[in-house]
Amino acid sequence: MDTLTFKTNKEELLDITAEIAETVKKSNFETGICYIYVPHTTCGLAINENADPSVKSDILGELKEMVNENYPYRHGEGNSTAHIKSILTGNSLIVFIENNNLKLGTWQGVYLCEFDGPRTRQVWIKITAG
Amino acid sequence: MDTLTFKTNKEELLDITAEIAETVKKSNFETGICYIYVPHTTCGLAINENADPSVKSDILGELKEMVNENYPYRHGEGNSTAHIKSILTGNSLIVFIENNNLKLGTWQGVYLCEFDGPRTRQVWIKITAG
Amino acid sequence: MDTLTFKTNKEELLDITAEIAETVKKSNFETGICYIYVPHTTCGLAINENADPSVKSDILGELKEMVNENYPYRHGEGNSTAHIKSILTGNSLIVFIENNNLKLGTWQGVYLCEFDGPRTRQVWIKITAG
Repeated sequence: MDTLTFKTNKEELLDITAEIAETVKKSNFETGICYIYVPHTTCGLAINENADPSVKSDILGELKEMVNENYPYRHGEGNSTAHIKSILTGNSLIVFIENNNLKLGTWQGVYLCEFDGPRTRQVWIKITAG
Repeated sequence: MDTLTFKTNKEELLDITAEIAETVKKSNFETGICYIYVPHTTCGLAINENADPSVKSDILGELKEMVNENYPYRHGEGNSTAHIKSILTGNSLIVFIENNNLKLGTWQGVYLCEFDGPRTRQVWIKITAG
Repeated sequence: MDTLTFKTNKEELLDITAEIAETVKKSNFETGICYIYVPHTTCGLAINENADPSVKSDILGELKEMVNENYPYRHGEGNSTAHIKSILTGNSLIVFIENNNLKLGTWQGVYLCEFDGPRTRQVWIKITAG
């Protein structure tokens, strides 16, 4: 298992594609599956557009509107919306490996979705043949 | 890796269960795991009810209500709601294989969720033993 | 493939971490990947906080607010909101195995998310080396 570490801002979609791709390169697997996992409960992982940066702010902005910040949450830490967004995005991804490369679609990037930063976050990676 | 191609309508849950099941059959794996992945950023994948077609329209209708179309999105292509719905559903699935068959629950089907069609979409599939 | 069975209440996040961990133990895999799958269409799976139980009620409460119960759903069984929540959480998870243990983050637990109980639910598990 590989562990990557990232420092995040308050709320952001942090592009971690290059770091994941480098981990795949180093594995020397010609074909396979890359499993990506965050061991946290107030951030998530998502694959989405890597071209226009306004897609990232649109996603964060509308998620902020969807998950009501004024709901009478009982959790004392005040970050219940981050727990909910984490469940909506999910905390793991799979990506295929072909020719020892991470095989993403043309417009896809891999994002660590921070909903309760700034924090230091871990991303765990496993790779299997396939 | 297998690649399937589908033509989609404007917005729909397209049942791709038969095509996935056929790919599993051809693989000759007796038991294993089937990984399904879409390399796009405005469609997604989901497993849900395969019996009453009104479930599909209920899902699309309520997602349309949940993800505000009148939010001041900045992405110039006008399809930010599709990017968000893609993140909510996710862009990959796993399904188990038993007896060389896709092992779904009784009421489950596999759906390509088109949120920004009509388009020609790819679905990538890998299968491993397990 | 292992099958676990759980009885659920009307609506709850049921902690199934212990049962999953026990299945991993029995597998004797030193390192690997644990795939968890529910063969149903009105419940889901999620990984989230295992400490403060109010996080669970906050998640269920806000999901109930997000997915409009008064939308003019056409599905006759009256449980369309449960189908939608099932798609939002997803119906499968992956968790890593290290030292023959389920490797979760410090604050993570594995939850069966019941949105249309009470029911008897199955959770399917596969484990591969990796």
